Amino acid sequence: MTNPATIKFKLVIAYDGGAYEGWQVQKVGTGVQEIIERAFAKIFSTPLRLHSSSRTDTGVHALGMVAHVEILASEFRMEERKLILAINAHLPEDIRIMSVTRVSAEFHARFDARGKEYRYFIWNLPSMNPLLRKTAWHVPLSLDLAAMKKASERFVGNYDFRSFAANRNYVTEDTVRTLTRCSITRKGPLLTIVIRGDGFLYKMCRGIVGTLVQIGQGKIQVTEMDAIFESKARKSAGMTAPAHGLVLWKVFY
Amino acid sequence: MTNPATIKFKLVIAYDGGAYEGWQVQKVGTGVQEIIERAFAKIFSTPLRLHSSSRTDTGVHALGMVAHVEILASEFRMEERKLILAINAHLPEDIRIMSVTRVSAEFHARFDARGKEYRYFIWNLPSMNPLLRKTAWHVPLSLDLAAMKKASERFVGNYDFRSFAANRNYVTEDTVRTLTRCSITRKGPLLTIVIRGDGFLYKMCRGIVGTLVQIGQGKIQVTEMDAIFESKARKSAGMTAPAHGLVLWKVFY
Repeated sequence: MTNPATIKFKLVIAYDGGAYEGWQVQKVGTGVQEIIERAFAKIFSTPLRLHSSSRTDTGVHALGMVAHVEILASEFRMEERKLILAINAHLPEDIRIMSVTRVSAEFHARFDARGKEYRYFIWNLPSMNPLLRKTAWHVPLSLDLAAMKKASERFVGNYDFRSFAANRNYVTEDTVRTLTRCSITRKGPLLTIVIRGDGFLYKMCRGIVGTLVQIGQGKIQVTEMDAIFESKARKSAGMTAPAHGLVLWKVFY
Repeated sequence: MTNPATIKFKLVIAYDGGAYEGWQVQKVGTGVQEIIERAFAKIFSTPLRLHSSSRTDTGVHALGMVAHVEILASEFRMEERKLILAINAHLPEDIRIMSVTRVSAEFHARFDARGKEYRYFIWNLPSMNPLLRKTAWHVPLSLDLAAMKKASERFVGNYDFRSFAANRNYVTEDTVRTLTRCSITRKGPLLTIVIRGDGFLYKMCRGIVGTLVQIGQGKIQVTEMDAIFESKARKSAGMTAPAHGLVLWKVFY
């Protein structure tokens, strides 16, 4: 499987997703992965492929995306600690490699990931904070934080999260996931929602946040939560929160 | 002095300074004040002038800039609470009116200001956080936080701050100011410096921050602080920190 003549590195990657069509592009547009692979191509002659822990959708940010890359030992002539500087020098300033660690040949960014943490930011004041306009969702009307906190507890555990994920054909796919944390903290007008789990369905974080906000607005009642889970229908839950408030915060190994 | 047929409002204004030549433009470029006055001009036929608590330099941000404006009573036909929405509707998204409060005819945003708080943000890690690249200064090498904290205490009190302000002709101007707070907190790689005082000389905050960072880098010793104050020469202190890490946080009345 693994070529013994290669050196494997684990990269922690941060990006402002505002300018990209997500981590990996299916059809049109530019993905973050592609930009980083191009930066590697400026340094190493053999084309390299990044293997990531996850994908992020268009407009979603990351501070702790993880990917691994294998570099031919015969092409790797620099000091290891200089690789991060070399790659960052070829990246636009909205994408940064935060750390580079040499890992064993067995390491796999996706298969070895034990869990992930996402954070979602909400600015809850009639006027948006212009310094957060690209990294937080503006919810102008006041929210019932107590109700949101109560509802957030309902997400922690091992459940079928189909009702909160974007519509896909989940007939064959297992839609049960385990969340170990779903917490909301408020600091002035800024709400931070931390969601940690072993895995996430497509747009599941944003479905959870959209539901929590609609609970905060009184459009959904906390008492409806059980029925929403049981329905296994996306339309029973709240809206999908916008992408630009979401950050892939950390991947656990 | 004050026209009795006018209504006076106090505005709290937030902006991302990245696209503007500061609050008020002297010669070329666009200032934030001008943009807001143009928004008022879309609603009221008599040209209005904003009178601000302070000015900010090119690239400096604000979350709590204060200005007052007088509107002819005969032209003011909307509900007071709708003024903020009307103005924000005519502003670009990097400038927001955060609150509008009716004040007495005697209120003056500049003369009544008792003090101001600035916050400065530093990202202290080899790789910059792409989500903070426009609102924090990237200082890649590690900083001696204990030394910086010790030095920061030296700024609190009533002193001649000429050594920390940009070179101007201070022969006739009083350069003594009182700082009531100068604190540094670290949360992971993010340093926040809070500076509160009764008034600030030109680029004084950025001179203080630049000096603190150079102390953190060991380029200036804490023991040199007294001599720097006494010299009353800008060149004896540290560099001027970049504008984009600074936020006018609050004005006190």
